[in-house]
Amino acid sequence: MRMSQAFIPTEKEAPKDAALPSHIYLTRAGFIAQVASGLYNLMPLGKRVLKKIEAIINEEMARAGAQEVDLSFVTPAELWEESGRIEKFGKELLRFRDRKENLFVLGPTHEEMMVNLVRNRVNSYKQLPLNLYQIKTKFRDEARPRFGLMRAREFVMKDGYSFHTSYEDLDREFDAMEAAYKRVLERLGLDFRIVEADSGAIGGSGSKELMVLADSGEDTLAVCDRCEYGANIEAARRSERTTIPEAPEADFNKFATPGIKSIEDLSGFFHVDPYYTLKAVAKRAIYEEGDEVVVFFLRGCDDLQEVKATNACGALDLVDVNEEELSALGLVPGFIGPLDLDAVRTIFDWDVKGAANMICGANEADFHYVGVDLSVLPEEAEYAALYEVKEGDGCPVCDGKLSYTKGIEVGHIFKLGTVYSAPLGAQFLNENGKAEPFVMGTYGMGVSRLIAAVIEQHHDEKGCVWTKTTAPYLVNLMISNIKDEAQVALAERLYEALQNAGVDVIMDDRKERFGFKAKDAELVGYPLTVIIGKELANGIVQFFDRAEDTKSDVPSDEALARIMEWIG
Amino acid sequence: MRMSQAFIPTEKEAPKDAALPSHIYLTRAGFIAQVASGLYNLMPLGKRVLKKIEAIINEEMARAGAQEVDLSFVTPAELWEESGRIEKFGKELLRFRDRKENLFVLGPTHEEMMVNLVRNRVNSYKQLPLNLYQIKTKFRDEARPRFGLMRAREFVMKDGYSFHTSYEDLDREFDAMEAAYKRVLERLGLDFRIVEADSGAIGGSGSKELMVLADSGEDTLAVCDRCEYGANIEAARRSERTTIPEAPEADFNKFATPGIKSIEDLSGFFHVDPYYTLKAVAKRAIYEEGDEVVVFFLRGCDDLQEVKATNACGALDLVDVNEEELSALGLVPGFIGPLDLDAVRTIFDWDVKGAANMICGANEADFHYVGVDLSVLPEEAEYAALYEVKEGDGCPVCDGKLSYTKGIEVGHIFKLGTVYSAPLGAQFLNENGKAEPFVMGTYGMGVSRLIAAVIEQHHDEKGCVWTKTTAPYLVNLMISNIKDEAQVALAERLYEALQNAGVDVIMDDRKERFGFKAKDAELVGYPLTVIIGKELANGIVQFFDRAEDTKSDVPSDEALARIMEWIG
Repeated sequence: MRMSQAFIPTEKEAPKDAALPSHIYLTRAGFIAQVASGLYNLMPLGKRVLKKIEAIINEEMARAGAQEVDLSFVTPAELWEESGRIEKFGKELLRFRDRKENLFVLGPTHEEMMVNLVRNRVNSYKQLPLNLYQIKTKFRDEARPRFGLMRAREFVMKDGYSFHTSYEDLDREFDAMEAAYKRVLERLGLDFRIVEADSGAIGGSGSKELMVLADSGEDTLAVCDRCEYGANIEAARRSERTTIPEAPEADFNKFATPGIKSIEDLSGFFHVDPYYTLKAVAKRAIYEEGDEVVVFFLRGCDDLQEVKATNACGALDLVDVNEEELSALGLVPGFIGPLDLDAVRTIFDWDVKGAANMICGANEADFHYVGVDLSVLPEEAEYAALYEVKEGDGCPVCDGKLSYTKGIEVGHIFKLGTVYSAPLGAQFLNENGKAEPFVMGTYGMGVSRLIAAVIEQHHDEKGCVWTKTTAPYLVNLMISNIKDEAQVALAERLYEALQNAGVDVIMDDRKERFGFKAKDAELVGYPLTVIIGKELANGIVQFFDRAEDTKSDVPSDEALARIMEWIG
Repeated sequence: MRMSQAFIPTEKEAPKDAALPSHIYLTRAGFIAQVASGLYNLMPLGKRVLKKIEAIINEEMARAGAQEVDLSFVTPAELWEESGRIEKFGKELLRFRDRKENLFVLGPTHEEMMVNLVRNRVNSYKQLPLNLYQIKTKFRDEARPRFGLMRAREFVMKDGYSFHTSYEDLDREFDAMEAAYKRVLERLGLDFRIVEADSGAIGGSGSKELMVLADSGEDTLAVCDRCEYGANIEAARRSERTTIPEAPEADFNKFATPGIKSIEDLSGFFHVDPYYTLKAVAKRAIYEEGDEVVVFFLRGCDDLQEVKATNACGALDLVDVNEEELSALGLVPGFIGPLDLDAVRTIFDWDVKGAANMICGANEADFHYVGVDLSVLPEEAEYAALYEVKEGDGCPVCDGKLSYTKGIEVGHIFKLGTVYSAPLGAQFLNENGKAEPFVMGTYGMGVSRLIAAVIEQHHDEKGCVWTKTTAPYLVNLMISNIKDEAQVALAERLYEALQNAGVDVIMDDRKERFGFKAKDAELVGYPLTVIIGKELANGIVQFFDRAEDTKSDVPSDEALARIMEWIG
């Protein structure tokens, strides 16, 4: 491409609402243009990056035996009624009526459509397994679209769905998809972790997230400093504690603890490690059919992980409760304990099961119990993993330590089981001729979000720094002065040679000053810019390596060979 | 691809509402699956064909210097208000409100969005010309979606838009796009005509349609038997008449013609050629702001072309008027003539301008005038081309004759001028620093419709007959009996060799009877099926050429070489 003919409208000013580097630079460098809140046009550079990412995904999906389809974006609402998701999805699901008053939705994801496509078309175990995917526009009417391509309303997603006769075969495919996704991110040149994830309200037997590591990531990950283990903080586990603080010796007793409401105060008051105190966290759990107050108990040294707590009680969401609400239920804020607490549902962290020597609230203002043995809890007490992993906790897999890092979720793979196939009546005949629902997996990847993720991980204060496989153009041939015939001649020669070699090359042949072109090259972030300038008279051109941020002199007659060498 | 693992659900029954071969076979052969009225999923075979067509379009667009973008499908309605099209487009334009009650449309075409993208980003004549395009999902809420992919509501379109400083430069680009579109259709292996088209209500200085020739086409084309000339009947022209019938000699006079209302009767009554009779056709013309009756006059030997007539009076549409309505206006059905006719608007075909020796209605029941000289019409009389070309008419370009054929419109290229740039205020500064609206062209191609068009032109009673460039797989290696190790071994060897050679190959390794596989091969329409069967024991395989519908024996040890030779 000749830059004089290209539509690359670079801008000096960032959008007013832009906070993230990807939002700022993708806009300023002419990759994207906002249309309305959460709606973006991809300009030629943005489209080129998108297609490069898509091509890599398509190659890896073909290699993994997945077959590409293309499902209608406009989807009959009745499919969403069948699956029961039309209400659950809430306002993010955009609904509309056509000219005949039939109700449709703009597909935010395509589980229902894919199950509908396969049901009655795949009837026998002989036709399984099957993995179908598409790369397609999706729409979610986000309440707060923001961060440019990172959280847009209209976006491009790769969504894949697999169909199996058994959970064993699903496990095999799930691993194959994890490997394929890993190859995609490796080929894109990204630093990432595949982490254990919260399976959320959707249930199923497990899920993993693909996280591109970046400071701006919205997700907190706990990762091991030794092994591959990583998990979203919402799902992270830790090893068993190896050092247990010395236990306080005390018989069961009730103590006056006037005004001692926090774990810190309680621990100080009794001179015991917070490990031996029982933390109570009350939340209002919101369900589809109503709500209730739930009290979660865990050791005082631990913090409640809200997503784990939400899953533990099967709620859609947890919200705070104020002291008045607690008092109305007979609860005494600051002094809530598990003994004789019948007014509300209680859930205990596994780590306090049968714990001895504990100090806990006495459900009476200004009183705590000491020397509590929690093996007195009734058999039917509910337990779950409620704790949030902390930096320094032990890795659950090896001897390493966990630390926090930030990630951008660019993929989520999921063992669905029969969550969709059962309600939608999608069945096959097994070897014994008996009808069973398909066992399913689903594999999503945020394709347009990946454009932003590349930049969140690869940028500096001057602009974008594309990886070699994602760059809109790999090489930029910058003619310093287009009135200099020798410069133009060399550039044209290199341009033709690189094109013939199949290299994505752009030539900056604009009638602009050198400084202007150099700033554009940095802002757009071409991996290699070859500066053909004054020094050409001395047989020298300059290579500017965007990622290294280095300039080096190269003999002009070696330029082509050195470019090819640089490309590798 | 191994067919045992492929999702190609062929069916014996055609959809109930399917009339066209493409609708029947694309469904039965497992290319498409209907979701709802006018909404289709592409299954793996359909997606493969779509991508092959897209790849060819992309290559030809790149060669022509057009740059690919990707515009938001969900479009703010305010852009359509700015252009004034929101009302004109009617119910085909699907509107909806998002969660914040803002009004959006699902883009049926993207003129407004593209102008919006370019305005304020291209400011100078130096940045022109520019040709931007996308291949993207579109939605039109058709009143009567039908014919499968031929007239779907959601469909894939290639829409391109060019921006110029002058009409001369637009003409150059228009020709370049015509050439590029021609190459696309040639490469797809289609028999087509590029024809002159009606510019319609949109105005502008001209347009051409790309028509794939097929009996099922909805458009009638007039094409020359000698030269390249072709036109949609709505816009077709003819040469000047070379043989003029002998004129009836009569002085101006009024004749009683009781009950003589049709041209046929009139011609018979006076024993004159219909050429010398004046046909009057009354229509109600519908405008945005109201309607009126218009009488169109043309020679009795000609028929009114309604689209030409619609354009001639600038109406949105023409509808029939009944005798009561005409009488109410003082018109006498069957006896309407141009003399002293002031009650309604009249428009004359150019061919009657100054015509002598004419017979026409006297605007009085049962009377006609003879010997009428139409040069008596007032200076300000309106003239336009109103006639419909007939088979046998002379070509307007060469000495050939015109005949009718049927076509499927798969593309429309258009000189827009400033129709959108002016109202949307999209301007550039010309060489003198003066602001001018962009001069624009637009270039559409129905990408998903092309899938159907290929089949409309290439099918037989057994199913699809794909061209080599559009086939989902070029070669089908059919193992007649998968329990025969020699058959399997040869098929596997060929499969690997063809894959290594980059050939799109599928291997029918299913545990099915030969007849079942053969029927599928014909229905799906792989261009070449290599049948590896019993005769392999004698060193023979069979080539089944789908287009030729021929089988030929080939020595099995030459199979690979002969396949590659067949591919060419």
